[in-house]
Order: sequence, then C-alpha cells, then structure tokens
Amino acid sequence: MSEQIIAFSGSVLDRADHVRSDPEKLAALTNWRARLLRLDGLAPVIGSDGELEWGTLAEADERAELVFLGLSADGRACFAAVDPALVGTGSTAPPDPRLWQVMGMLSPGDLAVYGGAKALVDWHARHRFCARCGHATRLAKGGWQRSCTNPACAAEHFPRVDPVTIMTVEHDGRLLLGRQPRFPPNRYSALAGFVEPGETVEEAVAREIFEEAGIRVRDVRYVASQPWPFPSSLMIACHAFAESDELSIDRTELDDARWFSRADVVAALRGEPDAAFGAPPPHAVARHLLTTWVNS
Amino acid sequence: MSEQIIAFSGSVLDRADHVRSDPEKLAALTNWRARLLRLDGLAPVIGSDGELEWGTLAEADERAELVFLGLSADGRACFAAVDPALVGTGSTAPPDPRLWQVMGMLSPGDLAVYGGAKALVDWHARHRFCARCGHATRLAKGGWQRSCTNPACAAEHFPRVDPVTIMTVEHDGRLLLGRQPRFPPNRYSALAGFVEPGETVEEAVAREIFEEAGIRVRDVRYVASQPWPFPSSLMIACHAFAESDELSIDRTELDDARWFSRADVVAALRGEPDAAFGAPPPHAVARHLLTTWVNS
Ligand SMILES: [Zn+2]
Ligand SMILES: [Zn+2]
Repeated sequence: MSEQIIAFSGSVLDRADHVRSDPEKLAALTNWRARLLRLDGLAPVIGSDGELEWGTLAEADERAELVFLGLSADGRACFAAVDPALVGTGSTAPPDPRLWQVMGMLSPGDLAVYGGAKALVDWHARHRFCARCGHATRLAKGGWQRSCTNPACAAEHFPRVDPVTIMTVEHDGRLLLGRQPRFPPNRYSALAGFVEPGETVEEAVAREIFEEAGIRVRDVRYVASQPWPFPSSLMIACHAFAESDELSIDRTELDDARWFSRADVVAALRGEPDAAFGAPPPHAVARHLLTTWVNS
Repeated sequence: MSEQIIAFSGSVLDRADHVRSDPEKLAALTNWRARLLRLDGLAPVIGSDGELEWGTLAEADERAELVFLGLSADGRACFAAVDPALVGTGSTAPPDPRLWQVMGMLSPGDLAVYGGAKALVDWHARHRFCARCGHATRLAKGGWQRSCTNPACAAEHFPRVDPVTIMTVEHDGRLLLGRQPRFPPNRYSALAGFVEPGETVEEAVAREIFEEAGIRVRDVRYVASQPWPFPSSLMIACHAFAESDELSIDRTELDDARWFSRADVVAALRGEPDAAFGAPPPHAVARHLLTTWVNS
C-alpha cells in the first residue's frame, strides 16, 4: 500500500506573510482582481469542474470581515469572508456525512485551501471579544490577528492551533486501536488526545494511552502531522511500543479497545467485507498511521 | 556531548485526569493535606533546599481561583492559585535574567512542575472573558477549563498550547543559525515560528525558513518537542536540509543569519572563549538541536 497524501496539507496558495503586516500592500491587493472563496456557511462550494468556487470581493456582505488567505500562482489575492450570519456561532462540531462527501470531491490542493480558510473563518466567528478584558475585538493583519478595541488593554489575539496527539501502539506484532462512541459501527481507529500545557508530545502520547487503555509505552516515535480544521487542530501522529498487552479501558472515553494483527489491519485498509474492523476514512491521519505500520 | 534532558519536561506529578472531571473527588482532595505551589507573581519560590516551596491551601487569597496541578507521589493534591493581583494581567513576555537564574536552580522534575503551573495560572489570568460572547468566565474542571457564565452561550474554553516549529538547517556540512534582535551579543540560535492553521509541521518549517532566510528545504525531520511556558508554547524541534546556501535574510525578523561549521558549533556548545558565536542556553530546545546535529 503506497503512502497517501496527508489530507488538508499541500495548499496551493502562498501565505505571503509580508503582505499581512503591510496595510498598504494589503489594501492595494484588495481590488477587483482579488478572489473570494465561496462558502456555504462553513462548507465549501464546489463548481461543476469539481474545484472550489471563487467569486469577487463584490459578493461579500458589506459588513463581513475579510481574511487574506494568500496569493494564488497568478499573483491574485485570495480572501474568505467572515459572514455576519456566522458571527458568534461558528462550529466546533466534527464534519457531518454531507461535508465529508463534499470534501471528498476536492483535489488535495483545494482541500488544503478550504481547510485553512475554514479554520480561520471559524476562529473569527467564535472570537469576537477580548478574553482579557471582555471588550470587542476587530480583525487585524489580514485576519491573522484580532486586536482588542479597548485602548487600556490593546491585547493581540492570534488564531488558535491546538496540538493533538494521535497514536498507534504496538505489542508483539499487534496494533492497539479503539472505538469512540461517535464512530460508525465496527470502526476502530488510533487513540488520540490534546497536548496539555507542561508536557512534551511524547509525554502526552504516553499519558493518553495510560489514561484510555491502562498500558505503559516506550519508544514513542513521531510519524507525521496534519492540520485538522474541526475546529483547528494540529494532529501529531506517533507510534509507540507497549510494555504489556493487558488493557484497562476507560469506558467513559472509549466504547472498546482491542489488539489487531497485521492481517486484520491489511484487510481493514483494503475494505474487505469480512475484515475484523472498519478502517479510519481516507482523510484521517489515523489511516496514514495504519498504512505506515503495515508497510514497516 | 551527551544528550540533555529537555527542560520543562519530566514532571513528577500525576495529572490525574479522572479527578478533574469529578467534582466530588476534587472537593475531597481540596483539604488540609493538599499542597499549594508558592509563586512570586509568576516566578517560582525556591526553598533553602533548592526545591520548589509548597504551602497549604490556607495560604491562598480567599478570592483566588485554584488550579489542580495533579497528585504527588504520596497521593496529595497539588494546586496553584490564580492570585487576584495577576488577574487581567499575566505575562506574555519571555523570561528575564532573574527568572532564568531562579529556574536554573531547579531540578528537572521541579522545573517541569513550575513550567506547567506557570502556563496554566498565566492562561487563567489572561482569559477572564468569553471570546464568543464577552461575558465573564469561571474556572471549571480543576482549572483545565473555563466556562462562560452566560447561560445562552455556555461556551467552554480550554488552556491554550501554541505549536511552534524550531529548526536547524543543514547544507554541505554546515548549519544555518540566526540572531533575533532581542538576543544577547553574539548569540545565534535555531530559527523558529508558529505553526499556522492549515499547515503541517513540515510545511511550517519550510515556510519559516523561506520567509526568514530565503532558502528552500527538503527532508524536514522531527527531532524532539518541549513545553515552553512563555506564555504557553509547544516547541516542535526539527532538522531540515537546504537546497542551496544563498541566503536572503528578512531583516525585519532577524539581525543576521549565517552558516556555521561543525567545529564552530562544537566550540560554541563548549563555551570556548574564541567560539564563532554564543550557543543557546541550556533550557532552550535549540541547544538540544545543536547537540543532536553535532552527535549525528
Ligand atoms: Zn482587551
Ligand atoms: Zn460566552
């Protein structure tokens, strides 16, 4: 099984950091040539050619804040609008089946552009006030900052990226996978959890596995990373080796956790009808972890 | 040169996640046996034995919110107080020389406990209001959450951990290091920058190096990670290989960037008086990157 592209990576836009911090440059690019990413709420809009649809800035609600996504290959500025209907709402929910279907139609480059835009627009929708003083904030630096409007505070706030560890665990040639209550029937995937203040990635991996499955691990190894825009995580995918295979499952977090053989994982990745479990979907970095293990 | 311990990792406390989410368990542990980490503002207080000083909960200001840090080896609950004097203030500044000196006295385990506590207390001090609706928030889940007090909103907010990439770049046996304007004279260190929404760790590394030094890289490899509590970063340390050595330095970000030979880096790590540059300090994961490269 060949290595997959990590979904939501490989954006075709140049982030053009020098533009964000230069109000004159940004204003000069906010013109009739600029492109506006069409969104249906927070979902992508896909044209008959299967690509993301873009309009012009004239389409944006006049009250909408504009986020500068970057420059396209032909030098045009690309924006997304924080629609007034989204303000104060946004979404922290995982994608629903319809959104999965729409995203599945996009090329990897378009999916990355959409994911980055969705994470940013969603962040602006949910971050209207200064966490320090409670006053209103306003968009700054082309949408890569919000600034407090209270002159006595003037706090600067930046789009959030939450690091999450996600890990496969190996023991004696078998792989530990778990089921979250929200998973479709028979799906098993890699365990996962947020990195907390005061711990390394490796410590977070070891803590999560002990909390959820009751086993100690060694030799935690980094495998890959993925931006995950639901709402705005950085998935840090790792592989670890368990000291034992005696599970003690935290049933408040997991429906189940089990050890699977290499043959089980191969059959699941192939989608064989009699596979022991259903593999994580193509967009999930968990699938990349499974594929990497099978190929190792 | 032997591998160093990553500073701020290796906390001796058990985070005891099951306690945070169980108000009865947490209340039962909030007793006369519980320990309160003594802080001087946001700096650690060190006893004559060179260890972190702990008091009892009786010492906390009665208006102070309490953050549950975890359980000590003898099963006592450990807390830190969000002192009313810190509320609305906190600190996003890097450590000053006095704080470096105090932190340098701590054992690795104590430094990790202090770092985790500092990041959390500081986050509570700077996050008093709901970013979504502007209402006041209150501490929840032993300090691992803040909840909006507006019933119509009820948003949950979690302590922030900001992923930052920090990287050494190699070309033809030499290493690229840069000088930030705030560095002490002659100090050179690894380039660094925040991971943004919509990019992988590897993409963030490549973007930062191109933005700051004008060169393209390949084969970005993860090396190590570090919790960095100023104010609350997760440093993700990587090594990359440059396609060329022709630098184009962004002088708004860097004073300078240069290629150093292996002998230069060895002399700097040894602190030799005629070394070509001053190495990053022991607490910095950048120093670990330099040591790893020298040993590779
Ligand atoms: Zn403010
Ligand atoms: Zn609220």
